Amino acid sequence: MNPQNPSFAREVEDSFTREPIMKLIGARLSLVEPGIVEITLPNRADLLQQNGYLHAGIITTIADSASGCAAYTLMPAGSNVLSVEFKVNLLRPAQGETFVARAEVIKAGKTLTVVRADVFAMNEGEERQLVATMQGTMICIAAPE
Amino acid sequence: MNPQNPSFAREVEDSFTREPIMKLIGARLSLVEPGIVEITLPNRADLLQQNGYLHAGIITTIADSASGCAAYTLMPAGSNVLSVEFKVNLLRPAQGETFVARAEVIKAGKTLTVVRADVFAMNEGEERQLVATMQGTMICIAAPE
Amino acid sequence: MNPQNPSFAREVEDSFTREPIMKLIGARLSLVEPGIVEITLPNRADLLQQNGYLHAGIITTIADSASGCAAYTLMPAGSNVLSVEFKVNLLRPAQGETFVARAEVIKAGKTLTVVRADVFAMNEGEERQLVATMQGTMICIAAPE
Amino acid sequence: MNPQNPSFAREVEDSFTREPIMKLIGARLSLVEPGIVEITLPNRADLLQQNGYLHAGIITTIADSASGCAAYTLMPAGSNVLSVEFKVNLLRPAQGETFVARAEVIKAGKTLTVVRADVFAMNEGEERQLVATMQGTMICIAAPE
Repeated sequence: MNPQNPSFAREVEDSFTREPIMKLIGARLSLVEPGIVEITLPNRADLLQQNGYLHAGIITTIADSASGCAAYTLMPAGSNVLSVEFKVNLLRPAQGETFVARAEVIKAGKTLTVVRADVFAMNEGEERQLVATMQGTMICIAAPE
Repeated sequence: MNPQNPSFAREVEDSFTREPIMKLIGARLSLVEPGIVEITLPNRADLLQQNGYLHAGIITTIADSASGCAAYTLMPAGSNVLSVEFKVNLLRPAQGETFVARAEVIKAGKTLTVVRADVFAMNEGEERQLVATMQGTMICIAAPE
Repeated sequence: MNPQNPSFAREVEDSFTREPIMKLIGARLSLVEPGIVEITLPNRADLLQQNGYLHAGIITTIADSASGCAAYTLMPAGSNVLSVEFKVNLLRPAQGETFVARAEVIKAGKTLTVVRADVFAMNEGEERQLVATMQGTMICIAAPE
Repeated sequence: MNPQNPSFAREVEDSFTREPIMKLIGARLSLVEPGIVEITLPNRADLLQQNGYLHAGIITTIADSASGCAAYTLMPAGSNVLSVEFKVNLLRPAQGETFVARAEVIKAGKTLTVVRADVFAMNEGEERQLVATMQGTMICIAAPE
């Protein structure tokens, strides 16, 4: 996949930095490539639901931001990206020291881009485990001419 | 819809109180009826995405918890509820002083319960606006016999 | 909801008539109002899956066409409508003499329209039963200028 | 993925043969492996929507049956499989001589199995094109003891 914007990596980082929610939960951008973005989230007691698993909404928060950023890497300079819709399947209890959301563009269009994001739980010395998978649509809001 | 558990309201409140993420974002339970639950979230600068709208993941966080609680009102005493999957359509930029997620059970089953949740933005003196809608599945984990 | 196209009903009927699959399965348009469309499908042995229920793909076929037509009632004259995505929850075994898919627009936009469609099973002398519900997105392809 | 049922291939074929809708549209089972099933559908004029593309509901019909069969390969002998929910993103106009739905199990559980299905369009002498992708949940109905 060929980025139209040579500064895509810097624009994605700028956009991510302007998301206050990412700071609140302690998430950071860990990979930015054309069509692929990863966000890493260290586990924290105040992000959990009633059973001690990462809340499905927080799983979605990192999967959605990773998806938006992945779509954004392929959009023209100066455009904006918004989520249209997404669907998430929760596959296993989300227990781990760290979580990684990895988003990949499946189909980039001029207006709509379809993205898949997998969320993994990681524990030291163990294989990473797929805990959720998202399939979503992002829309490109073109820069004013 | 008839609750099987006469203490459903107290059990939902207990379960909600045990969700640390609800405290982090400042959400509170505002309505608990058989098959219907509302969660209210005052807007806050650290919950936003890059354009100043409530992050889609936080919209999902309150919609998912409201859905889980709505399903839980109809489950037997001592059971547990987990999210299986959900799909969210984002309809408008989520701007408001307060947000409310209202979940209603569409079909309660012994194992699986299907729930719809609408998320509204509210501003003083204005009509509430639908900003997102979720359609999801919750699973009942039965109490050990 | 106010239709922009005064001939919306005729345009929807024309579009429906041009869908060969509707003829193959025996579906007919039974209601066309601004933002609301119903499609009726008499049950037939060759539409079923292995347990004798209406196949989930055929449930989806009528729900998707009803959704596209409902969105289309609110689009400008001469435009075209395509499905972007949809999600279907199957709620009960689809058994009945007749099925009705009823689609209603939740949010009409210039480009994207979000629609909900409920599919009901009907048996003479009984209340209709909700067997599936769809939440989907339709896109307006504008008429060439 | 290890099938629990040594006769899984024959059981899947039997189940597929008992789906009358597959005969109506002309679909056939073209691959059965543990956790993976393909269904092939030759294009036909009576399966199309108003623009001459394969109807999204028929895309869903083969994706859903392939998903159910893929889940079924990993279920115990004598059980039954039903669709709980699915979400489909339509990526490109579905034009082709033949369509193939390829389903793969992402996570097999005792009760619920999550499956992804890609639908490809094929034209002689060309690379196959991804036209739609589905993410769904199947439920195992255990054999009566």
